Amino acid sequence: MSEQATTGLSIHPVPGLPEFAPGDDVAGAIAGAAPWLADGDVVVVTSKIVSKAEGRLVPVPPGADREQLRLQAVEDEAVRVVARRGPLAIVQTQQGWVVAAAGIDASNVGQDALVLLPEDGDASARRLRDRLGELLGVDVAVVVSDTFGRTWREGLTDVAVGSAGIRALTDFRGTVDAHGNRLETTRVAVVDEIASAADLVKGKLAGVPVAVVRGLRVQQPDPDDGTRPLVRLPQDDLFPYGARDLVGSRVPADELVPRPGELAAVADAFRVASGALPEFPVVFRYGGEGDGVVDVHLTDALSTTTALNLGALLGAAVVQLHADGWTTRWEPVGTPGGSSLVGRLWLGTTPT
Amino acid sequence: MSEQATTGLSIHPVPGLPEFAPGDDVAGAIAGAAPWLADGDVVVVTSKIVSKAEGRLVPVPPGADREQLRLQAVEDEAVRVVARRGPLAIVQTQQGWVVAAAGIDASNVGQDALVLLPEDGDASARRLRDRLGELLGVDVAVVVSDTFGRTWREGLTDVAVGSAGIRALTDFRGTVDAHGNRLETTRVAVVDEIASAADLVKGKLAGVPVAVVRGLRVQQPDPDDGTRPLVRLPQDDLFPYGARDLVGSRVPADELVPRPGELAAVADAFRVASGALPEFPVVFRYGGEGDGVVDVHLTDALSTTTALNLGALLGAAVVQLHADGWTTRWEPVGTPGGSSLVGRLWLGTTPT
Repeated sequence: MSEQATTGLSIHPVPGLPEFAPGDDVAGAIAGAAPWLADGDVVVVTSKIVSKAEGRLVPVPPGADREQLRLQAVEDEAVRVVARRGPLAIVQTQQGWVVAAAGIDASNVGQDALVLLPEDGDASARRLRDRLGELLGVDVAVVVSDTFGRTWREGLTDVAVGSAGIRALTDFRGTVDAHGNRLETTRVAVVDEIASAADLVKGKLAGVPVAVVRGLRVQQPDPDDGTRPLVRLPQDDLFPYGARDLVGSRVPADELVPRPGELAAVADAFRVASGALPEFPVVFRYGGEGDGVVDVHLTDALSTTTALNLGALLGAAVVQLHADGWTTRWEPVGTPGGSSLVGRLWLGTTPT
Repeated sequence: MSEQATTGLSIHPVPGLPEFAPGDDVAGAIAGAAPWLADGDVVVVTSKIVSKAEGRLVPVPPGADREQLRLQAVEDEAVRVVARRGPLAIVQTQQGWVVAAAGIDASNVGQDALVLLPEDGDASARRLRDRLGELLGVDVAVVVSDTFGRTWREGLTDVAVGSAGIRALTDFRGTVDAHGNRLETTRVAVVDEIASAADLVKGKLAGVPVAVVRGLRVQQPDPDDGTRPLVRLPQDDLFPYGARDLVGSRVPADELVPRPGELAAVADAFRVASGALPEFPVVFRYGGEGDGVVDVHLTDALSTTTALNLGALLGAAVVQLHADGWTTRWEPVGTPGGSSLVGRLWLGTTPT
C-alpha cells in the first residue's frame, strides 16, 4: 500500500576476493568476482590490497620489533611532521596527504609485513580502470580508499587516496540556488563521500575490500587529475603545525628567497604577538627598505627588561611568521655605539 | 549471463518536500513523502530544514548588510576562535563542533534570513525519530547532517551534527583481524559516513534535503548519546590553534590555577623553542621550587643581544606553553644588583 522508494543509488559488496601478494592482478580478481560491473559504476578499492599487489610492503623479519619498524617506516614516508604526541605522528606524505602514521597500517596484513600507501594512488586507479575496461568491456570509475582520522572529530572515515574516471571535486561555485543566492565556496569532495559510502558495506573485519557504487551520474574529468585537486596547498593551510611543532620553520634559512610583503607580514606578526603577550611591554619600531629585510629598533630605554621584552615579542612573531610559511634569519647588532638598532630580521620563502 | 550484484545497501531520495518555516512539522512532511519507510532505515535530514523548522534563523531586515550580519552571527555562535584568515573564521560552537563560520550558511535560504546550526542536533534527531515512529509505526534511526570542510583536504563532505537510534562510533578496538592483529585504534564514525553517503543523492541544488539509507545493520546505543562521542576533547586535540592564533593564551592569566608538571612543561617548551630558533643562542637556566612558578636566569654575560636572545626563546616557549593549554604570567626582575635572575614565569591552568 505504500508506494516504493526510488533508489538514488546502491552499494554492492564484492565478496570472494583472495588475499593479494606482490604481482597479483587485482583488476582480474575483481572482474572475476564482479562480472556484473556496468558502465557508470564506481569501483571502490581499499588501498591495502592495491599496496599489497604493488609490493608496497615493509618486511618484518622473524624476531624483529614490528612496532619499531612501523615507527621507522612512518619517519621514512614523511616529508614533513605536522604534529607529534608520544608515538603518534601526523605527517605529510610524498603524495601530499596529511595523515596519522603516514597511512601505514599494521592490521589486515600478515605479522611479517607492514603496508604502505600506494606510491601513486591515482596511477593505481587508472591502471585498475583501464584493465577492468579491457576485461569486461565496461567504462567504470575507480576510487582507491583509505581510512583517515580528522582534526577535532573522533572516529575515522574512509577517504579517497586515488581516483580515475571521475571528478574528485564537484564545483558548485558560481551557481545559483533556488533562492537566488550564489554558492561561493561549495566544492564537494565527491570521491571522499563515495569512499565513505563504500566503507559502510566493506566493513573493517569482514574481508570485503571492494564495493561498487551504482547510480551516480559520474562527471568525467578532462584532463584526469585524479585526487590531486583534494590536496590543500600550503598557502591555503591554516593548520601547518600541531601543538608539538609550533615554532618550527618551514624551510632552512639558507634557502631563503625574498618574496613580496615581508614588512606587512612582520607588522601583522608583531601585532598578534603583542596582543597575546601583553606582559612584555616595550617600545620599539621596525622598518627598512622592504627588500627581504626588516630593521628592528629598541626605542625604549635600554635595560635587561626592555631587551628581554622585545626579544619575547620577536620570538613570538618569528613563530607566527614560520607558521604563516615564512623563513626567517635574525642578525643581531647589539646596539653598538648607542644606536637603537638591535638587529635585522631577514624574511623569505622557499623556491617554488 | 552475469550473475546479479548483491545489494549491500541502497540510498533513496525523499523528493517532494516543501520549504520549511518556523513551527513546521518536518517529521510529518517526511512521513507523507516517504510512507515506504521501514524498520532499520536511517533517515538523513539536512540540518538546514531542521533549523528552519526550529526557528534557528537570524533575520536580515530589508536594506541590512547580510554579509555583516553573517560575520556577527559567526562571532555570536562561537565559543572559541580556532583560526582566522580574512573573513574566514574557523570556530568551535557551543555544540563542540569546530567548523568554518560556525556552520552558518547563507545559501538555500531566503535573502531575509541566515540559518544557524540546530541548537541541539541530537535532540532534534530524537524528536524526528520519535515522531516518525508515531506516524508510521517504524523504528528508524535519524542522522542530522551538515556540510563541513576538513583540515589539509580541499572539498567539503557531509558529517553528522545530530543522531538518534544509532551508535555514532563503531568501536573495533580490541577485536582481532583475520591475521591475528589486534585492532587498537579503529573507531569508525559511522554516522559521518552515512551523512556523506546520503549527500551523494541529496545533492546541493536539487532541493532534496532528506535521503534514506537502507540495509545497514544499525547498532542501537544504550544510552543514546547521539553524536556526543564524535566531539574530540581538548586534551586529545593536537590542533587547538590555527596559524592566526598561534600565540594566544587559552585562559586569562588572572584565573591561573597551579597544576602539576610546570617545570617539565617549561623544560620541554624551552627545548622546542631552542631547537626551532637556533639563531638566538644564549646561556640561561631555569628552575625553582616547583609550585607554579619557574625562575629564569640569564647566565651569559649581560648585553642587549643576550637579553634579547633569552627573550626570544622565552616568547617562543610561552607560545608553545599556551598551545599546550597552559596559562602564563611573567614577572620581570631585571637583574637588580647584578643578580642573574631576570624574571619569574608563573604557570597554571583554568579550573576544571
